[in-house]
Amino acid sequence: MSFPWPEPGTRLEDVPTPMPVIDEDRLAANIARAQGYLIGHGLAFRPHIKTHKIPAVARAQLVAGAVGINCQKVTEAEVFADAGFDDILITYNVLGAAKLARLAALNARVRRLLVVADSAATVAGYAAAFGPERPLSVLIECDTGGGRVGVQSPEAAVELARTIAAAPGLRFEGLLTYPAVGGAAAIERFFATTIAALAEAGLDCPVRSNGGSPDFFSAHLVPSATEHRAGTYVYNDRSMVRAGHCGREDLAMHVLATVVSRPTPDRAVIDAGSKALTADLLGFAEYGEIEGLPGARIVSLSEEHGVVDLSAVEGRRPEVGEMLRIVPNHTCVVSNLFDRMVFHRGGAVTRVEDVAARGTVW
Amino acid sequence: MSFPWPEPGTRLEDVPTPMPVIDEDRLAANIARAQGYLIGHGLAFRPHIKTHKIPAVARAQLVAGAVGINCQKVTEAEVFADAGFDDILITYNVLGAAKLARLAALNARVRRLLVVADSAATVAGYAAAFGPERPLSVLIECDTGGGRVGVQSPEAAVELARTIAAAPGLRFEGLLTYPAVGGAAAIERFFATTIAALAEAGLDCPVRSNGGSPDFFSAHLVPSATEHRAGTYVYNDRSMVRAGHCGREDLAMHVLATVVSRPTPDRAVIDAGSKALTADLLGFAEYGEIEGLPGARIVSLSEEHGVVDLSAVEGRRPEVGEMLRIVPNHTCVVSNLFDRMVFHRGGAVTRVEDVAARGTVW
Repeated sequence: MSFPWPEPGTRLEDVPTPMPVIDEDRLAANIARAQGYLIGHGLAFRPHIKTHKIPAVARAQLVAGAVGINCQKVTEAEVFADAGFDDILITYNVLGAAKLARLAALNARVRRLLVVADSAATVAGYAAAFGPERPLSVLIECDTGGGRVGVQSPEAAVELARTIAAAPGLRFEGLLTYPAVGGAAAIERFFATTIAALAEAGLDCPVRSNGGSPDFFSAHLVPSATEHRAGTYVYNDRSMVRAGHCGREDLAMHVLATVVSRPTPDRAVIDAGSKALTADLLGFAEYGEIEGLPGARIVSLSEEHGVVDLSAVEGRRPEVGEMLRIVPNHTCVVSNLFDRMVFHRGGAVTRVEDVAARGTVW
Repeated sequence: MSFPWPEPGTRLEDVPTPMPVIDEDRLAANIARAQGYLIGHGLAFRPHIKTHKIPAVARAQLVAGAVGINCQKVTEAEVFADAGFDDILITYNVLGAAKLARLAALNARVRRLLVVADSAATVAGYAAAFGPERPLSVLIECDTGGGRVGVQSPEAAVELARTIAAAPGLRFEGLLTYPAVGGAAAIERFFATTIAALAEAGLDCPVRSNGGSPDFFSAHLVPSATEHRAGTYVYNDRSMVRAGHCGREDLAMHVLATVVSRPTPDRAVIDAGSKALTADLLGFAEYGEIEGLPGARIVSLSEEHGVVDLSAVEGRRPEVGEMLRIVPNHTCVVSNLFDRMVFHRGGAVTRVEDVAARGTVW
């Protein structure tokens, strides 16, 4: 977009809206706090870049001590490989000739690449696309209660591990789960049972990867795990505050919006709609929370408008042209909407970063 | 993105997923049908480009007879001005020095530019930014029941029209509404009352712009209107079928997705999540509808995964690697997620178009 982006030093009040803005100090504190906790518990940290999609932020995560990064798509991983990242886990069943060819090219150029599989069909695709000269490292994704992808039992995991281990072009490296919130006991049971059964089958299982931001600070309750993956913790959002993961002082992302209409005394309309906040409610009744305006409720979104119910606001109500700061329900999906993002410290712009891996759908 | 995009002639089965695909014949039929209806009722048509964001599609709309286009943001309008479009209505209160400067530059280079206002504050901004040498044409947005932006009464419209008419750099051109569904009578009442009051005040009101796709074929029930605006009609979606606007045979957009996991007999997981379908439910219980798989329900989305409940599917269930065709709940928000989009005819790719105005947030 040709719109002039704010120069460093620009006050946030002068940033055109709608725009997500990232607080540098909170970002740094979130990275340090999470990394410190995992170091303290002897767990490796592999941040998921889906939340920010920005190489410079991932670089800060590595500098703090992360062992590598986690991507969800091959093309997303390519963006980060191009930026110099060389230890990448793709937590996705990669299927189809075109994507497998890309995966092989990626595997040939990064120091360490890991992918997941949860079915014989996925493993068959990997086995056909990779040879012993440059084998592919595979983790088995386990459904420990999250109800999304993953093998359903330790027995199924062992069976799939045998298939992987038997393929000349594949290397079985371990287990992975994206858990249900509060599922530490279930994860530990699944991991421990599977590790024991794998050992009986003569299969080593060096990587046991757990994940998730909402339960981040319970990661130590899964002693079988060797690493943890998380994305949202880096910016945090309304859902993370609700989950008890962080406080309001840890919210690094806000969406700046402007009141564009005050049609009635009880209604304000802002320029942040579903193209800025997304329709992700995540169980909330509102599409985000307006800071410093208690009682205001973002009750509906169209693409470019957010309708705010002011009826419960006591005291002064914002006028047309005033800027508001919104805590989004879910940061990751906001990042996916913007090509660039503004960072700031103490209310002054520090830098504008390309959201480099936005739009990588494959 | 560097992924090789499908060449013309590629079969849809070989298009990497997730990907929205547009049926050329249905697209052309939707454009012709809508334009034909409005011509038959003597109404001008001004398609809203938010649904496709693609100049080539807007060109087809103009060729069919549209008088101009409708954009929602200044930067969106700039993309279309760059592509040669010279009659543009921006249906937004444009606020702030930076955006007003862009608006003035745009006004200087397109043949006809119209914007809206619904408050004295917005009009004051326009009045300060425009002079008599190149005046800005302004419509007053009216809230005729939609409950979003807009002046609340004909009296308020007349008062604002006087303010516009009195500003040396502004030209009052008429009225506009984005209506509630089924609000033809309310729109006509608001428009007719206001037009009469404007006439009494000595103010001409040449443009009376009505809008919306769900109620598109009721546009003739607002005899005071001179033009209609609509976006979604061009692709249609699940919400348009529900509204009775179109049939299933008019659905020009599908999202292709692949089954990436079948963790249980009753669960399939597809590679279309909220980054492909968005979380827009629009009142539905599912995040889109899978064609040809009755009983299948897309019950939850994470960013890259859609969870499909197959428990009510009688007969064969799709396996890992199979491609599905999804009717999205809402097309416009899908277009906003993809940098490029695939068009096809009879199952073969015809072209790949840049979604040129995606990401234009200002």
